[in-house]
Amino acid sequence: MIILGVDPGTLRTGYGIISVAQGKTIWIASGTINLVKLKTLPEKLKKIYFELTDLIERYNPQEFAIETAFYGKNVQSAMKIGYARGVSILAAVNKAIFICEYSPREVKKSVVGTGAASKEQVNYMVKSILELAKGKVGLDESDALAVALCHSFRIKGISRKSTSWKSFVEKYPERIIQ
Amino acid sequence: MIILGVDPGTLRTGYGIISVAQGKTIWIASGTINLVKLKTLPEKLKKIYFELTDLIERYNPQEFAIETAFYGKNVQSAMKIGYARGVSILAAVNKAIFICEYSPREVKKSVVGTGAASKEQVNYMVKSILELAKGKVGLDESDALAVALCHSFRIKGISRKSTSWKSFVEKYPERIIQ
Repeated sequence: MIILGVDPGTLRTGYGIISVAQGKTIWIASGTINLVKLKTLPEKLKKIYFELTDLIERYNPQEFAIETAFYGKNVQSAMKIGYARGVSILAAVNKAIFICEYSPREVKKSVVGTGAASKEQVNYMVKSILELAKGKVGLDESDALAVALCHSFRIKGISRKSTSWKSFVEKYPERIIQ
Repeated sequence: MIILGVDPGTLRTGYGIISVAQGKTIWIASGTINLVKLKTLPEKLKKIYFELTDLIERYNPQEFAIETAFYGKNVQSAMKIGYARGVSILAAVNKAIFICEYSPREVKKSVVGTGAASKEQVNYMVKSILELAKGKVGLDESDALAVALCHSFRIKGISRKSTSWKSFVEKYPERIIQ
């Protein structure tokens, strides 16, 4: 099974693609869609959508994992994240991929062991788990790989009985994005 | 010139299409994309995107107007509106339509005369301006027509000199969505 994890933002959108097969998790691809130089919001949204669509076509993931909660208090920041998440989710749903959501705390806890972990701790653990220790991995990239890993751990948790999507939905109905 | 105005939301997304030619403004089409029955966010975003893309292909608008400010304080509401606005803007930018943004206050002021107007007042004035008095027009639909009308008034304001997009951008640089 191939999982695409995304950490959307209007400045940088991180992505991470991993493969989970026979109990092993392997890094496939990851990176950052850099939007800093694009001046307008429509240009940024277009780039996020087309880059993610391109990744989906190239790597053919069956599942898509994204962080959806937002703990900040700034309404304008929330709306900007909403723009980026909206087009990211659209890229997945347009390719009929199953979409799962996790909160930042869940992602951190599953990868580092504590929901209060820093981005740097997440980065360190992601590199360790996926054996990327020698390469440089950006913080948006590691956040995206972390949400993909978080989803893979949930899948592994039910893999002794069944790896089907149906059983996942039955076990974790709250994971299905509402 | 044909203008598509959109009032995006994850429960209902209103749209309004008007034509502005030789000083006259004519209603072309309007309605509401009803998302209440769709259970998941990805389904809602997909429907908004495809319905708007379909309208753009059918009516071929050259300009797209949308409300972008948000005066509420609820972060979760802001993010939901962000999701809907993100995919609406994407539908326009994917068809290479010029996108302009207006605040709710600007829209209300341009149509009713006061930035504090109610949705019902906007509805009444939109029906009056577009001579739709006999038909029933929903509040999301009239909000979408109102933002299209707001944009048409700005265009008319510069029409004596030039109707080109370039002159509009020069006169109203703050209108171009950032």
